[in-house]
Amino acid sequence: MIGRLNHVAIAVPDLDAACARYRDALGANVGAPQEEPDHGVTAVFIELPNTKIELLHPLGENSPIAGFLEKNPSGGMHHVCYEVEDILAARDQLKAAGARVLGSGEPKIGAHGKPVLFLHPKDFNGCLIELEQA
Amino acid sequence: MIGRLNHVAIAVPDLDAACARYRDALGANVGAPQEEPDHGVTAVFIELPNTKIELLHPLGENSPIAGFLEKNPSGGMHHVCYEVEDILAARDQLKAAGARVLGSGEPKIGAHGKPVLFLHPKDFNGCLIELEQA
Repeated sequence: MIGRLNHVAIAVPDLDAACARYRDALGANVGAPQEEPDHGVTAVFIELPNTKIELLHPLGENSPIAGFLEKNPSGGMHHVCYEVEDILAARDQLKAAGARVLGSGEPKIGAHGKPVLFLHPKDFNGCLIELEQA
Repeated sequence: MIGRLNHVAIAVPDLDAACARYRDALGANVGAPQEEPDHGVTAVFIELPNTKIELLHPLGENSPIAGFLEKNPSGGMHHVCYEVEDILAARDQLKAAGARVLGSGEPKIGAHGKPVLFLHPKDFNGCLIELEQA
């Protein structure tokens, strides 16, 4: 069911410093910050030859990553995103297998303009999983 | 400098349960467990179309992931591995940029039989980074 790894998301407390680090120390291709007020984050994409790294910083109040950064003040790996062909079929298969879908269970439009769902990290060894309909 | 994302490693407390979860709930292509006594882990690779997920479980005493699982009993994202063309040039560029290389600073032969280095997570927003000479 799961297809490509779309991205690995890393929450960072200082977006400028993180961008400089990936650009200057790792020599990566670091994009421009994108404010996504509907998702409570500012995102920076790092393009790799086969996938992307997404640096996430809280934007506004009630950011979904504010709590994560409170627990992990230096930042940390926040989630991985897998592509699926049919997000409703994927959801139903996961629920039938006993995995919990976060929120209402209905897909939302994610930061890339495509339907997404998040799966409970307790069902996947502490790893928060985003599914995106490719 | 950094090239492809070679893999994302996830430490898991129960390898059989994690394999079943990725195979049955996520429909992933889960490989056979590989015991790597030199690295203190049993690894299972999950092949995605563009990269790999590596499930890691401690093997033997002094496993490098035993401490991580003590702090994160349910498991969690452990590291990401980027490919580089020349690991010594990469190391020197990173050190010049002020990033810390773990251990002696000399590459070791990693689980895939290729030279690897690890970078201090405190220099990369809490994210442990492995570099592998591709």
